[in-house]
Amino acid sequence: MKKLINTPGEEVREMLEGMVLAFPEILRLDPDWNNVYRRYKKPSYKVALVSGGGSGHEPAHAGYVGYGMLDGACAGFTYTSPTVPQIQAAIREVATDAGVLVVIKNYAGDVMNFRTAAELAASEGIKTDYVIVNDDVSIIEKEKRRGTTITVFVHKIAGAAAEEGWSLEEVKRVAQKVVDNGRDLGVALTPCIVPAAGKPTFELGPDEIEFGIGIHGEAGVKRMKYMPSKELAKMMVDKIVEDLKLEKGEEIALVAQGTGGTPYMEKFLFYRDVRKYVESLGLKVFTSWIGEFMTSLEMQGGRVAILRLDEELKRLLMAPATTIAIKVPPPIVVT
Amino acid sequence: MKKLINTPGEEVREMLEGMVLAFPEILRLDPDWNNVYRRYKKPSYKVALVSGGGSGHEPAHAGYVGYGMLDGACAGFTYTSPTVPQIQAAIREVATDAGVLVVIKNYAGDVMNFRTAAELAASEGIKTDYVIVNDDVSIIEKEKRRGTTITVFVHKIAGAAAEEGWSLEEVKRVAQKVVDNGRDLGVALTPCIVPAAGKPTFELGPDEIEFGIGIHGEAGVKRMKYMPSKELAKMMVDKIVEDLKLEKGEEIALVAQGTGGTPYMEKFLFYRDVRKYVESLGLKVFTSWIGEFMTSLEMQGGRVAILRLDEELKRLLMAPATTIAIKVPPPIVVT
Repeated sequence: MKKLINTPGEEVREMLEGMVLAFPEILRLDPDWNNVYRRYKKPSYKVALVSGGGSGHEPAHAGYVGYGMLDGACAGFTYTSPTVPQIQAAIREVATDAGVLVVIKNYAGDVMNFRTAAELAASEGIKTDYVIVNDDVSIIEKEKRRGTTITVFVHKIAGAAAEEGWSLEEVKRVAQKVVDNGRDLGVALTPCIVPAAGKPTFELGPDEIEFGIGIHGEAGVKRMKYMPSKELAKMMVDKIVEDLKLEKGEEIALVAQGTGGTPYMEKFLFYRDVRKYVESLGLKVFTSWIGEFMTSLEMQGGRVAILRLDEELKRLLMAPATTIAIKVPPPIVVT
Repeated sequence: MKKLINTPGEEVREMLEGMVLAFPEILRLDPDWNNVYRRYKKPSYKVALVSGGGSGHEPAHAGYVGYGMLDGACAGFTYTSPTVPQIQAAIREVATDAGVLVVIKNYAGDVMNFRTAAELAASEGIKTDYVIVNDDVSIIEKEKRRGTTITVFVHKIAGAAAEEGWSLEEVKRVAQKVVDNGRDLGVALTPCIVPAAGKPTFELGPDEIEFGIGIHGEAGVKRMKYMPSKELAKMMVDKIVEDLKLEKGEEIALVAQGTGGTPYMEKFLFYRDVRKYVESLGLKVFTSWIGEFMTSLEMQGGRVAILRLDEELKRLLMAPATTIAIKVPPPIVVT
């Protein structure tokens, strides 16, 4: 295993230190836990947002902490859920009178630990609620679907609503609306290596790809022979569009991203194929996110995510945000 | 070879199409050449900047076309210099009364083709000059040094000067100052595959790394056994600091970047190690660039670049820019 790390097991802490060194005006690190918070605590009228999960999916989630998105992110060890006391510490740190919304990706460990921490916080008198993201269309049963890229849209849109002073109930409503209207699908060309394990999470032949891959390398819909970007784009978009029952003329936010080790060239080329195919179906791309948003260490491959938009979601999606990974400048208003 | 591409040989054009589809407000593509220009041509008082080179180093160079940086970028086939007529077309397209500065990375093919195109443009009556970037400290003889990451600082700083209406002579002077004060060094953990070749450009054993790698995978200073990020960071910084004769208290711009396939986690961890070591030497980090700026397809590894700063370079480095890869917002001024 060759990685730009020092000691396996220390990689998460050292990565977080790098983020805070690079962006001290946005982030601070809690030295007792691998929790990252906004540099400045927000006023008490504002609902606080907490998320997190196993590391290795960067920029998720510390990269989304900041104005207009998360108040705190709990970073578990690589591909391992944060612990209950760690999440409790984050909820206590960011809690305001307006309450805390916990954004959970649908994995057994994450759901158990984040939900338990949320319930314990509530029993301490902190107004707390949560939303579970399950957007990965590669699994048929909705309740078993894993949480992937749409989580980032939840951070963005619920974060904007919270910033505007919406109530906890209203922030949760719009977060759930994003979950209900978003889907994701991934394909892996190569596996990835968890530092503590030191070997690939799965094997792929020189001509094989995994279609419908989870963000930890969980098996997907099927193992297939390698196919060109255009064909992959079509298969992925078709599956999402069918599941979301998207119709001609609907407006969407489109994500075409790499999975961590995908080079720039392939990210833009894959985006082209996804974008062209989506438009050939008569869908209207309101905004595109290209790059890396929810990754799987150094895995090479791609993910497509689509969010059906309405006027409310469009406005909140484009509202100002200042995080490492997402920056939306405020409009210039002279009064 | 498994890549998110369609037909080898078509990957550059299709990638550029993706960039322009994603950022039509910044870029346009010349359909006759793989040349990318600013969406809107700039006024004639402004020196125009042209750069480019083989593709596979994205976001270089199309990612740096836009306000405050380049006016045009010529994209050659992957790891292949653009042709003389292609570069001539770019110079003609962006030329203004103020002249054209061509920014060339020091590779035999690039120097020959860009310089020839510049000379032909001059013979057509276009005021043209060029600067050659040779920042890679892995080679001892200065004139043989390859052009790598410092090229992006040349784009940024000369681009800002051009935007302010400096003369061609003055823009060239500040571009050369960047070259003289910047150095880069790379390390590869894995090789990369040129689509048209279909196999890795070089081989590395499971425990080997290449120290001082070129951006096309050219052999470096030495092949070494894998070592942790901290030790690599120290070796790389030492070599650059020694070559630049940097002294305690000097201000620098610091780049710690991935080489294309390096995941986010490693990029931030490596940045931490580089930053801490640089500061332990008493150098002052004025600004950091973390991410990917001059890459080598899906190669995993890291590059460090350091630019010695003075007041002139600091101001131009932080001047506004709007490109795909570099965005510096203008200050808000109410008068």
